[in-house]
Amino acid sequence: MAANTYLTGIKPTGDFHLGNYIGAIKPALAASGEYDTYYFIADYHALNTVKDADELRHSIRSGAATWLACGLDPERTVLYQQSRVPETFELTTILSALTPKGLMNRAHAYKAARDRNTEAGITDLDAGVNMGLFNYPILMAADILVMESTHVPVGRDQSQHLEYTADIAGYFNHRYGTGYTFPVPKGVIDDSDASILPGVDGRKMSKSYDNHIPLFLPQNKLKKAIRRIPTDSTPVEDPKNPDASVPFQLLTHFADADKVAEVRGRLEAGGMGWGELKNELFEAVEAELAPKRERYEELMAEPERIDEILKAGSERARERACRVLARVRAAIGAA
Amino acid sequence: MAANTYLTGIKPTGDFHLGNYIGAIKPALAASGEYDTYYFIADYHALNTVKDADELRHSIRSGAATWLACGLDPERTVLYQQSRVPETFELTTILSALTPKGLMNRAHAYKAARDRNTEAGITDLDAGVNMGLFNYPILMAADILVMESTHVPVGRDQSQHLEYTADIAGYFNHRYGTGYTFPVPKGVIDDSDASILPGVDGRKMSKSYDNHIPLFLPQNKLKKAIRRIPTDSTPVEDPKNPDASVPFQLLTHFADADKVAEVRGRLEAGGMGWGELKNELFEAVEAELAPKRERYEELMAEPERIDEILKAGSERARERACRVLARVRAAIGAA
Repeated sequence: MAANTYLTGIKPTGDFHLGNYIGAIKPALAASGEYDTYYFIADYHALNTVKDADELRHSIRSGAATWLACGLDPERTVLYQQSRVPETFELTTILSALTPKGLMNRAHAYKAARDRNTEAGITDLDAGVNMGLFNYPILMAADILVMESTHVPVGRDQSQHLEYTADIAGYFNHRYGTGYTFPVPKGVIDDSDASILPGVDGRKMSKSYDNHIPLFLPQNKLKKAIRRIPTDSTPVEDPKNPDASVPFQLLTHFADADKVAEVRGRLEAGGMGWGELKNELFEAVEAELAPKRERYEELMAEPERIDEILKAGSERARERACRVLARVRAAIGAA
Repeated sequence: MAANTYLTGIKPTGDFHLGNYIGAIKPALAASGEYDTYYFIADYHALNTVKDADELRHSIRSGAATWLACGLDPERTVLYQQSRVPETFELTTILSALTPKGLMNRAHAYKAARDRNTEAGITDLDAGVNMGLFNYPILMAADILVMESTHVPVGRDQSQHLEYTADIAGYFNHRYGTGYTFPVPKGVIDDSDASILPGVDGRKMSKSYDNHIPLFLPQNKLKKAIRRIPTDSTPVEDPKNPDASVPFQLLTHFADADKVAEVRGRLEAGGMGWGELKNELFEAVEAELAPKRERYEELMAEPERIDEILKAGSERARERACRVLARVRAAIGAA
């Protein structure tokens, strides 16, 4: 077991946006210097919502290509496809036998689905809930434990995921600990605001708020999307509060410190209009993303290459998963 | 795909009894002439109740040895260990994403567990229910579908299992049928009474009624168990009704037709006591089971040999499962 294994899952459902880039991709890529990093495309989690084969196939490749384009080095980071490490699903089955149903009843994603039914006046609160959603926390625990992950990045609102994984690892360790013990992973919680990008309406950027800007928009569409960010009607010459401005907040994530300080000064002094601020923002985003977008498009034009990278990474991940499962199987008496 | 694949699962939880032998083992062995037969030791189903590694290991071997001792020919029938065909668990995960939770809420085994809590005055009806039990019908569907089984023996009270499998196969076929279609298995329901063995109290022999006689009791213990079957105090010389007698019912399953007719005549005429009937029953059971018991004990003395047979069978089963999964993965877009 490596001392520090950092694992993160990438749900391949639709294209990434700037918030994913700042909040997930950049911090995860930064971690690859510090840890043994394992990043996986969670294609079987995606099955809960994506039921079209072509869409899933595209999303798997698009997810992998996005991370590769953003700088993931597949030699340093094991990039793999969840479904190509089937030991994950075997472990899910083993862990299911140890996990009380009550724990799943209280899972946030499941409760949210029931709440939506309540709000919609649907009496069968389980309407529209499939077993993939209900089992989600066990599959996630298996994803984490099958790699003996020690560090898992979690959003502030996702701490339950990791608590559940710790609970489920604990059930196993309590029962079979003399034969094999899972390391209990720590959550890497980014408590700074540095990784939370506002959406165009000022709330956290999220597809569910429909306030997001896609990551790899073509140049002209990116420009338009940035121009459309709502701003107030303060005249150009008036002083402005940068900290209350969404375009300025976005700028702080893409421009360097000097540029950010310069723009802040000009906004506070008056004489800089929202249009000019948006131009600065566009230039900064475009400077950071244009080479990545180009690389993304190159990769997507060669899907066999993405598939090869995913297969090679999955083989490396699988070697590790097989070693873990062999020990788990011996501990439970199945081998 | 073979035209007719007959699959049956063997739950390795504790030792077999005479009722299993007559009701499950003999009919399944008879089927091996008619079908392509696949029999598996359901070790991961057993995990829901067996949490001790040595006990599980023993039960897997004991289950395999029992079937082999009873005449299963591992060349003709693929005898395998469920957990050695991990494609089963991958398929479980895939099928979960298509299975509504409502279906599981209505499953008999789950409802029975809730009913037991209600009766015991426990307010949390899910108390003691683990996710393995709750997911059981999906895992069972995966067991059946991963082998493209066409025929599955089911007890009269187990028709829900197969209805669920048909439902779950239907969800998949409806969604992905253009890419791959699961055959929907037929239940082989034995509607005759020939396969229902009474227990010592006259109800169906079952461990849950504690009215069973273990399959491979040593000779002297078998004799004692048969002597202890309750009978009434009708004097030896009085005529007796064979059809109301448990030992006679048992005899019909173990003695040949001539012997059964002879004993029937002597009971109806009077002059044959219960003790003599029980001697006849012991002789018949012992004649049928003694060579099997001997073979069972030989096998259990060489666990590596059982393991080898299970491994070889599991490899054959796995080849088939891999072919099926490759097609399933292509159909859903994961490959």
